[in-house]
Amino acid sequence: MIISIRRHASADEIDSVISRIRDFGYKIHTIEGEERVVIGAIGVGDTSSCLDALAAMDCVEKAVPISAPYKFVSKEFKPAQTVIKVGRDVEIGGSEFVMMAGPCSVESEGQIMETAHLAAKGGAKILRGGAFKPRTSPYDFQGMEEAGLKLLAQARTETGLAIVTEVMSDTDVELVAAYADMMQVGARNMQNFALLKALGRCGKPVLLKRGLSSTIKELLMSAEYIVAHGNKDVMLCERGIRTFETATRNTCDIAAIAALRELTHLPLVLDPSHATGKRSLVPPLARAGVAIGADAMIVEIHPNPARAVSDGAQSLDPAHWLEMMEDLQPYIELWKKTRPAPAPAAV
Amino acid sequence: MIISIRRHASADEIDSVISRIRDFGYKIHTIEGEERVVIGAIGVGDTSSCLDALAAMDCVEKAVPISAPYKFVSKEFKPAQTVIKVGRDVEIGGSEFVMMAGPCSVESEGQIMETAHLAAKGGAKILRGGAFKPRTSPYDFQGMEEAGLKLLAQARTETGLAIVTEVMSDTDVELVAAYADMMQVGARNMQNFALLKALGRCGKPVLLKRGLSSTIKELLMSAEYIVAHGNKDVMLCERGIRTFETATRNTCDIAAIAALRELTHLPLVLDPSHATGKRSLVPPLARAGVAIGADAMIVEIHPNPARAVSDGAQSLDPAHWLEMMEDLQPYIELWKKTRPAPAPAAV
Amino acid sequence: MIISIRRHASADEIDSVISRIRDFGYKIHTIEGEERVVIGAIGVGDTSSCLDALAAMDCVEKAVPISAPYKFVSKEFKPAQTVIKVGRDVEIGGSEFVMMAGPCSVESEGQIMETAHLAAKGGAKILRGGAFKPRTSPYDFQGMEEAGLKLLAQARTETGLAIVTEVMSDTDVELVAAYADMMQVGARNMQNFALLKALGRCGKPVLLKRGLSSTIKELLMSAEYIVAHGNKDVMLCERGIRTFETATRNTCDIAAIAALRELTHLPLVLDPSHATGKRSLVPPLARAGVAIGADAMIVEIHPNPARAVSDGAQSLDPAHWLEMMEDLQPYIELWKKTRPAPAPAAV
Amino acid sequence: MIISIRRHASADEIDSVISRIRDFGYKIHTIEGEERVVIGAIGVGDTSSCLDALAAMDCVEKAVPISAPYKFVSKEFKPAQTVIKVGRDVEIGGSEFVMMAGPCSVESEGQIMETAHLAAKGGAKILRGGAFKPRTSPYDFQGMEEAGLKLLAQARTETGLAIVTEVMSDTDVELVAAYADMMQVGARNMQNFALLKALGRCGKPVLLKRGLSSTIKELLMSAEYIVAHGNKDVMLCERGIRTFETATRNTCDIAAIAALRELTHLPLVLDPSHATGKRSLVPPLARAGVAIGADAMIVEIHPNPARAVSDGAQSLDPAHWLEMMEDLQPYIELWKKTRPAPAPAAV
Repeated sequence: MIISIRRHASADEIDSVISRIRDFGYKIHTIEGEERVVIGAIGVGDTSSCLDALAAMDCVEKAVPISAPYKFVSKEFKPAQTVIKVGRDVEIGGSEFVMMAGPCSVESEGQIMETAHLAAKGGAKILRGGAFKPRTSPYDFQGMEEAGLKLLAQARTETGLAIVTEVMSDTDVELVAAYADMMQVGARNMQNFALLKALGRCGKPVLLKRGLSSTIKELLMSAEYIVAHGNKDVMLCERGIRTFETATRNTCDIAAIAALRELTHLPLVLDPSHATGKRSLVPPLARAGVAIGADAMIVEIHPNPARAVSDGAQSLDPAHWLEMMEDLQPYIELWKKTRPAPAPAAV
Repeated sequence: MIISIRRHASADEIDSVISRIRDFGYKIHTIEGEERVVIGAIGVGDTSSCLDALAAMDCVEKAVPISAPYKFVSKEFKPAQTVIKVGRDVEIGGSEFVMMAGPCSVESEGQIMETAHLAAKGGAKILRGGAFKPRTSPYDFQGMEEAGLKLLAQARTETGLAIVTEVMSDTDVELVAAYADMMQVGARNMQNFALLKALGRCGKPVLLKRGLSSTIKELLMSAEYIVAHGNKDVMLCERGIRTFETATRNTCDIAAIAALRELTHLPLVLDPSHATGKRSLVPPLARAGVAIGADAMIVEIHPNPARAVSDGAQSLDPAHWLEMMEDLQPYIELWKKTRPAPAPAAV
Repeated sequence: MIISIRRHASADEIDSVISRIRDFGYKIHTIEGEERVVIGAIGVGDTSSCLDALAAMDCVEKAVPISAPYKFVSKEFKPAQTVIKVGRDVEIGGSEFVMMAGPCSVESEGQIMETAHLAAKGGAKILRGGAFKPRTSPYDFQGMEEAGLKLLAQARTETGLAIVTEVMSDTDVELVAAYADMMQVGARNMQNFALLKALGRCGKPVLLKRGLSSTIKELLMSAEYIVAHGNKDVMLCERGIRTFETATRNTCDIAAIAALRELTHLPLVLDPSHATGKRSLVPPLARAGVAIGADAMIVEIHPNPARAVSDGAQSLDPAHWLEMMEDLQPYIELWKKTRPAPAPAAV
Repeated sequence: MIISIRRHASADEIDSVISRIRDFGYKIHTIEGEERVVIGAIGVGDTSSCLDALAAMDCVEKAVPISAPYKFVSKEFKPAQTVIKVGRDVEIGGSEFVMMAGPCSVESEGQIMETAHLAAKGGAKILRGGAFKPRTSPYDFQGMEEAGLKLLAQARTETGLAIVTEVMSDTDVELVAAYADMMQVGARNMQNFALLKALGRCGKPVLLKRGLSSTIKELLMSAEYIVAHGNKDVMLCERGIRTFETATRNTCDIAAIAALRELTHLPLVLDPSHATGKRSLVPPLARAGVAIGADAMIVEIHPNPARAVSDGAQSLDPAHWLEMMEDLQPYIELWKKTRPAPAPAAV
């Protein structure tokens, strides 16, 4: 940490800062500038608590950490890219680009079976579909719950697709894990820490969506929660953040994919459906997502979007879905050519 | 709802829109302009689902609801201001301005007892203190959990203050409700819908904090969740939103207090500590909060902020706390003078 | 326009609204719902002033325009894609993807000549370089002004590249237009309306950068200013918007390229340098920009970024620049294949 | 400055950083931690350029300034509060709270005279009114220009009120300064650097409005431009920033008033009209503004808001304006009591 002291601080005040830093186990280097004193704190300690403590002292102008607050998810800790196995034979983060597709909500047996076949036909390897739905209004459809999970499992049996579905509370983790191949954490739950902890022990990979107003650093910290609680199989999903712009449902921070690639070894996923909220914008954004190097993508499709109970505006209909997948092929070919060969052995 | 149709839409397309709207139980008024057709949908139906369905139709340019999506929390539904009883004898929303104060976290018996006496001395009626702590990092102090709740109960016995404390998961609602006089929902959990539903059945008033990037409308919808699930005693807390500005921890949207006053009958609370993140800014913002007409306020205080395990930078030390409360008195006197007399009987 | 009237409004109040709308030349359709009255205003009038006037009336709950507020720049007005000629032989918006490159600032003859040759070697057709620099601090380098413009002109003579450079004030429009092939409006000046009006009469194409917190609609309105004042050759540049995220300099709203494509016929440009602020993120974002279908791109390059007087952190050095251009080739090939054939004749 | 070096940087890389820092005139202190090297740069130099240069070097992880980038406007430079004389006898920043009021636009002689008398009747000391109007649409009313300035001067003669009016371009500075007592810079021009420089030489006080997405630091830097170019009489105006919230026109960052008070000696103004965009929210926000300690306030009033050519929705009508001013009196009395006595002599 680097701590700068306010001008005109007394020697006593500076001593009290130094002593406080030493309490946390750091060594001190003092730099006396012409205008103010700056202190370097070196070593390994509880940085976060120490920064908190220093911020509370009046004579401290600024206290800045040097190291990142996450560890297990960082590239410094594990330089080799993580490859996550989902279901029996899908790998995300490896040499194949993986597409996940499906409806916003599981609505009925007919709807989910039809969509699953459609997803498979387009080349998806994983079926998405919500059985527990986070809805802004208590009066909106809240999902089919366990009945929906059963339909997803049935779709898996029939199509061979792996299943990803959302879990909304630590209470439901065990139930959802009994059916799903991958557990999805929705944007509104990215900092539901009770849920993150429970997912550390769930035994299934986790698709962690970035919160609407969460920074890249906070996304990594939430992943760190899951890893620190025992589950190394976490992938991060950019799905658009909330800004002042209302022309699209969210603002897709696509550069976050490239920025995260430099910081973490975890696989990176793009959700162009929620990022835009508009069907016609999904295919061009999906092309961009492949080009920037996402490991996988998750999109909403529906046999009849105008009849969908939720998110119809951003769901691709069968024709657009199949057309998009064809359109993406040459980009996926380029993606493969520039993919670095997998590292021989992970940490 | 008002639905505008894209230019050059065919008669068939328009018919399909009209038929879809009628499915949801609305009557239709069509306005044929020179450039495009606009449809008014009149009646009572499932607006939210209908808007979703329409947004999914290609020939629909825009579909705009006219009525607000919340009901029970709206002033249209219940014009009289709600007064909520907390503990044995505190009322929020009535003729007294209520101050809540306490540490970010319950740290030890000594700390919470000392802080409770300090809170009471300054004129607070409710003691705040976290036993379950939402922390960005898994390596930060996560709270004393039930031991912390017991200390809060002990502080209540000793000082007579009522207790407000955070609950982070539906799993913990029963446990926290056994000790607390008021249940706090933190900003990161404002849309933890499993938690909101559980709070609908908890039997205690709820202090609902606005999410970091939640709109006023979403805040009202989250309150509507709790009310629709059985608990009418909800108050709303502005605690700063996330913006591009980094000079303060958050940006206090103080005008939201005035805007909410026009929309809802629920009591309104300001948290100047989280809104600014900086001790020295709390007193001026607290004055503004009283002046704009908040019903209550919640601030962080600590016997020794530099030794606090969390949020030390924004906690008032004993001298500043007592000074602030004295400074606020004339503003609170003005507040009382302009307070409308309580309505004789609520709906 | 659609105007919804507050519940319980009196018949007199509604009449005054209707009479006000008629003042602006609209015809009225009234829809009487069960809860409130909604008025449709049909025809052609001064929508913007009428909306303002209605918003000021207490009994008006909401007044929503149906048509977009821009005209000349809209795809409804002119469906065929606009192709803009820059300098002698560069066309933007047509069948070639165009790259612009150069330093943030013109610093010296040696620097700009070296950079111009480097830009040309990589395949750029247009040289960028600032002679007038908008700088947050009055103590930072403010640009070489006319001397810089002369150096740019000299670089054009030597390399054949066209020149784009920023103009910061209506006072300077004539001067800059005497040297430049294309006039750049910086993000901070996107709503400098005096400047926009002057550019309407400058006789050179304009590269209009999106403001840091400007919506897509406001960007189109600013373009409309230039077109309405006489200059049809405007292209729009996404260069990142300001959000809460600090890991990148700005947040690249890449989906805006796809969203704008549906709304306007003007050519669309991406600036991955300002969008990220970080050299290593420029090549992946540039790939995404080509894939999503930008017509052109503008990037910062420098012979020696560590010696640049401004924006060194986001400038590509010679090796990275040439490598990026090679890396982009297959994406540009795909871009060409999917490019719609140019329309036979524009409006 | 504090510069942290990436892990695994070579000794040569570190040497090149050190040598680059020395080029800018700083002395070096190196701290070798267990994981990485941190360099402290001490002394006085061109910090901004040096930070730019360092950010461009690959082995530099982070370069953080310690001192603020502004000087003349800082409290460190001049601890005594600045008092600015406007017109013949108004002082802002001193022992009187000053109210400015008037219409958004000057529309006609009748309108501005009527409004001026109304402003004076309510207790305003300064009349606001736009003669040059920044409008998002080229088709909206652009102001009466010099004719409007003449009407303002006439209103001054008739009422004794001082005049504040907006200037939009450096071209118009001389003209506007010939009529106005105070020059207003609108939010969209806060970083119109050509305008700021011209205002440095205009001989009249400047009311500088914060940009829609400008940080507090950038606001201070724009003020520094004006001061550095020769004009010390600058006051800063919070008028709401742009966020994701749409319930109000902007989000009033009221805590910025308190935060700026700690950083600068310049007077601070609140504009509750633009901050909310809604007439009914202006009085409560104005109370909050007085309570938090603003030196002055600027509000929009109109004899007949429903007939205003612009901003009618946020303009107070005569009755509300007079009522608000009466309502504010006790808050202004409290403001005076807590006002520190003016410093004997400024620097």
